[in-house]
Amino acid sequence: MPTTEQKLAAVNGYVDAFARGDAEAIVALFDANATVEDPVGTAIRRGHDEIRAFYTGSMATGAKLELYGTPRCAADYVAFDFAVKLEWQGQKTVIDVIDTFRLNDAGKIVEMRAYWGPENMKAG
Amino acid sequence: MPTTEQKLAAVNGYVDAFARGDAEAIVALFDANATVEDPVGTAIRRGHDEIRAFYTGSMATGAKLELYGTPRCAADYVAFDFAVKLEWQGQKTVIDVIDTFRLNDAGKIVEMRAYWGPENMKAG
Repeated sequence: MPTTEQKLAAVNGYVDAFARGDAEAIVALFDANATVEDPVGTAIRRGHDEIRAFYTGSMATGAKLELYGTPRCAADYVAFDFAVKLEWQGQKTVIDVIDTFRLNDAGKIVEMRAYWGPENMKAG
Repeated sequence: MPTTEQKLAAVNGYVDAFARGDAEAIVALFDANATVEDPVGTAIRRGHDEIRAFYTGSMATGAKLELYGTPRCAADYVAFDFAVKLEWQGQKTVIDVIDTFRLNDAGKIVEMRAYWGPENMKAG
């Protein structure tokens, strides 16, 4: 079972990597066979190459993350609510998102799911 | 696929049922074969009888819910971040929680998972 410290380090490492625009630092947080579903219901990206491509695209929008509250740790999961601040079609935009990470015993993310929809987007 | 309106109605119905201390109103939000895992990693309650027993116990603490943000809807899921305000071992306590609901096409909750841990509890 991953520790609370590992789960919080994954969340903080994720936020920090966006702050630096460092897609490779994001990739390093994930297990080699991890899956990313963002938002839930869309095509699942699997493995480091697909994950790198996804986050490189996300970071091209200038996206930065700001946590709203303390991450919620339970068993091998951590859930966290946050704002994504980015440029969307030329407009400063904020998207309110909730992510869940499932971690393995090495502290690597094996599953990421992002919950958000059109009603969570607003002018920034 | 459940609609956004059905997903938001489930969340608002859930908050309102706690406000009234009405466990039966909670049960009515769930499909007959629904599962509840609160917090994630603990024993799963399945079906209306186990769900009723669980929420009757929760409401015995006087628990009330306050949403922090707009629920996040994606595909057949809705995720939401909220405070639980209750009496815990004689102390007013706030627990910051993130829940996910998965709904069926009838708008009933088929799966509820609650993410929170000891570090999300504070004096209220």
